[in-house]
Amino acid sequence: MSTLTVPHSLPPVSDDVEQLRKAFSGWGTNEDLIISILGHRNASQRKAIRETYAQTYGEDLLKALDKELTSDFERLVHLWALESAERDAFLANEATKKWTSSNQVLVEIACTRSSDQLFSAKKAYHVLYKKSIEEDVAHHTTGDYRKLLLPLVSSHRYEGDEVNLTIAKAEAKILHEKISKKAYNDDDLIRILATRSKAQVNATLNHYKDAFGKDINKDLKEDPKDEFLSLLRSTVKCLTRPEKYFAKIVRLSINKHGTDEGALTRVVATRAEIDLKIVADEYQRRDSVPLDRAIVKDTTGDYEKMLLALLGHNDA
Amino acid sequence: MSTLTVPHSLPPVSDDVEQLRKAFSGWGTNEDLIISILGHRNASQRKAIRETYAQTYGEDLLKALDKELTSDFERLVHLWALESAERDAFLANEATKKWTSSNQVLVEIACTRSSDQLFSAKKAYHVLYKKSIEEDVAHHTTGDYRKLLLPLVSSHRYEGDEVNLTIAKAEAKILHEKISKKAYNDDDLIRILATRSKAQVNATLNHYKDAFGKDINKDLKEDPKDEFLSLLRSTVKCLTRPEKYFAKIVRLSINKHGTDEGALTRVVATRAEIDLKIVADEYQRRDSVPLDRAIVKDTTGDYEKMLLALLGHNDA
Repeated sequence: MSTLTVPHSLPPVSDDVEQLRKAFSGWGTNEDLIISILGHRNASQRKAIRETYAQTYGEDLLKALDKELTSDFERLVHLWALESAERDAFLANEATKKWTSSNQVLVEIACTRSSDQLFSAKKAYHVLYKKSIEEDVAHHTTGDYRKLLLPLVSSHRYEGDEVNLTIAKAEAKILHEKISKKAYNDDDLIRILATRSKAQVNATLNHYKDAFGKDINKDLKEDPKDEFLSLLRSTVKCLTRPEKYFAKIVRLSINKHGTDEGALTRVVATRAEIDLKIVADEYQRRDSVPLDRAIVKDTTGDYEKMLLALLGHNDA
Repeated sequence: MSTLTVPHSLPPVSDDVEQLRKAFSGWGTNEDLIISILGHRNASQRKAIRETYAQTYGEDLLKALDKELTSDFERLVHLWALESAERDAFLANEATKKWTSSNQVLVEIACTRSSDQLFSAKKAYHVLYKKSIEEDVAHHTTGDYRKLLLPLVSSHRYEGDEVNLTIAKAEAKILHEKISKKAYNDDDLIRILATRSKAQVNATLNHYKDAFGKDINKDLKEDPKDEFLSLLRSTVKCLTRPEKYFAKIVRLSINKHGTDEGALTRVVATRAEIDLKIVADEYQRRDSVPLDRAIVKDTTGDYEKMLLALLGHNDA
């Protein structure tokens, strides 16, 4: 469920474009005007705005925004203005160049998107970077990380609901055997998580819990500081409970000393039109405070306003 | 270049369908009639025939053909009647269930098709088998074979012509180092072959030859009986010289004692509309005998007639 609110009677695209242009011109930038427009337009409306802006002023709206805005607010508006496939390609490309925590982003993109969305991101990656996400992930990672991340970003998973219970039982057993032996980088363990359909992974993990008495992620917590184990747990969560996964990312980004704007920005920009309502509910259930209130407490200025707009506040 | 010949003035699809129905009815089957129609219709025409046949007679043409025809002829007509994405999915599915020589088929499909064609095959696989080619390949292979085949079938390679010469040089060096140490299953060696664009692989292998004085496939021939090495050589060939690869498959299928109809059928059915003319030229250059003559010598009956029809003989 989306949190985005779009006005009932929408001005023509040409008006939006003109207003944005106005917001950029003269002394200073009118951030409120930018938020009141872009913070309340859905993907196809933003796409139309970007196209019309380019036709009208011969300049990419993204370039104009980057010139006018700064820091966290700039990044949020920039990510939000991108089409979702482009945005995923952009985030994945950033992640291949950085290390450690950005692996999480790759898992997120590989495992929380539908197969078609992931494929669209791969096509956008070709167009934007003249290479494939697969080669960049493979090139910039090594060892166990590569072993896990490459098949995760590569697989085009089957998306039907059909589940093979014989396979679910057999593979739950394999997972349990490998985890018991601490063979976390085992070929079969990775194969199962990286190639099976989400419905099938879910059936396997349900059986795992039934047969062995514990959530697989509990068993994958042997060493809480082990980054590879943490990546495996993210994989499991992203595949089976994406809204819980995102709620946790948001929680960690807000609750640690100093907000982790990178993660907060990413989750809000990528989920506002998908399931941010559920993520926010999940957040509140766990933290006993509404997400918007937590955001107000932890952020300021235009960045805060844009976050709240995307969370559904109308008076941004 | 295609070898297929299609009549200048084509009968209406309804006529083709009626003629095929006639060929199936009465005493025996009129194979010549089947060949004269299906052996001279391109992909979209065959698709229209299959659709119209199903609408007219409430039966899948493929089922009707399977009932009427037998052995090699049946398989050739069956493969030929499939749409290319379905055919690739069908061949890949067969290959995941069998072992050894069928690995070649997976390499062939993964490396000689365009990224879009491979993706279409993956989508057809979802529809036909309610699972993904990735999970089947991963499930039915082990060890080094899985390590190579899974990324090969999974990657959506970049298809542009852009080449990064710095990477080409660096990766040629990596390949040479690994091969010198006989580390044929090395992570980086497989990563380079499995994820780089064909243009990039080609640049890297050209640099390999320039810098180290030998074709990589010569260096991958240490033990001619090693099946994994043979698969690596096929990968290289399929990525860089598909027509040479196919000519060799055809040559081996014809020249060994007893023709390997499986391979011959597959190559003719999958390449007739793509590059069978070049494959045949390549065959003749190497064997000093035209491919059609070699086929006449080695095959018989309706199977031979259909092969020749697909090779461009008009009097099939």
